[in-house]
Amino acid sequence: MPYVHMKLTPEGLTKEKKETLMRKVTELLRDELDKNPETTIITIEEVPTDNWGIGGESVTRRRQL
Amino acid sequence: MPYVHMKLTPEGLTKEKKETLMRKVTELLRDELDKNPETTIITIEEVPTDNWGIGGESVTRRRQL
Amino acid sequence: MPYVHMKLTPEGLTKEKKETLMRKVTELLRDELDKNPETTIITIEEVPTDNWGIGGESVTRRRQL
Amino acid sequence: MPYVHMKLTPEGLTKEKKETLMRKVTELLRDELDKNPETTIITIEEVPTDNWGIGGESVTRRRQL
Amino acid sequence: MPYVHMKLTPEGLTKEKKETLMRKVTELLRDELDKNPETTIITIEEVPTDNWGIGGESVTRRRQL
Amino acid sequence: MPYVHMKLTPEGLTKEKKETLMRKVTELLRDELDKNPETTIITIEEVPTDNWGIGGESVTRRRQL
Repeated sequence: MPYVHMKLTPEGLTKEKKETLMRKVTELLRDELDKNPETTIITIEEVPTDNWGIGGESVTRRRQL
Repeated sequence: MPYVHMKLTPEGLTKEKKETLMRKVTELLRDELDKNPETTIITIEEVPTDNWGIGGESVTRRRQL
Repeated sequence: MPYVHMKLTPEGLTKEKKETLMRKVTELLRDELDKNPETTIITIEEVPTDNWGIGGESVTRRRQL
Repeated sequence: MPYVHMKLTPEGLTKEKKETLMRKVTELLRDELDKNPETTIITIEEVPTDNWGIGGESVTRRRQL
Repeated sequence: MPYVHMKLTPEGLTKEKKETLMRKVTELLRDELDKNPETTIITIEEVPTDNWGIGGESVTRRRQL
Repeated sequence: MPYVHMKLTPEGLTKEKKETLMRKVTELLRDELDKNPETTIITIEEVPTDNWGIGGESVTRRRQL
């Protein structure tokens, strides 16, 4: 019954990459904790770099430096 | 003071359906737990089927099978 | 596939009340949006009144007024 | 290592306002709790008024009254 | 109507510090975005250092180095 | 800069298992998306089976059947 939420910036996050993340995190929880894949839920939220802050400024600004 | 967050895939989630969900969840918390509707907050997040995984694959792919 | 997260203060939140909330929210999503109960996940988080703020102060303090 | 998530409706939420929020929340955590800004993460989620409920109805409808 | 969720490790997080965080974040949102304090909700979640990872290991282990 | 939140029921979730999950999810994000482990944050929330619902009832009750 695990629930996993992943927040990621959108660049490079193709449909295929998302499938890979979902499959591998589900397998990890099955292998390490014997969790049933059929009740393992994973949601991916794509957070724009303007809306993600670290060190007191956005990732957008940080990358311009 | 309850706070409820609902993650749903967007299909069929009209403005009217959202109003209904917000009203009924708020009424449920008032009726069952005597919570004040004026401080009951509900947010709805629409998660694309590409970003929702179950059983190790996206809902998009699952629906194609 | 809906996922619902409810934050509530712990007072009066018995095991039975939690079962009722889980059943009724699941039924609401089935009735309004035709969501499959078997993939409807609900988690309840009990937030102490010291850790819940509204109007710039904790619910603990607010209730003392 | 704090992590702060802010849900806000999008009106008036310019790039500059977001930078200001990120900077000031990070400074607050540094000043009050001695948290290292370099590991302070802040994400901002913009929630449409149709998807935000209070008092059993959406903010969209509430503002029309 | 803002909703702010803060995840913090519990050390040094006294009742007074929590009141200060709630008051100052609420004031910040009022001053910067003209948000009504009476509908500004803040929840604080205390995450044990065993359950917080950065750089691929827990904060517990990281602090032992 | 990824942020991953995992909700799990507490049984079998030892300190060692948590370290393994944190390490492997961080490595997965580095390997698949080239994310920097030093800014990859993972939090684990342990949700009691009374507070986790699926199919309209708690996991506690479901396991008794």
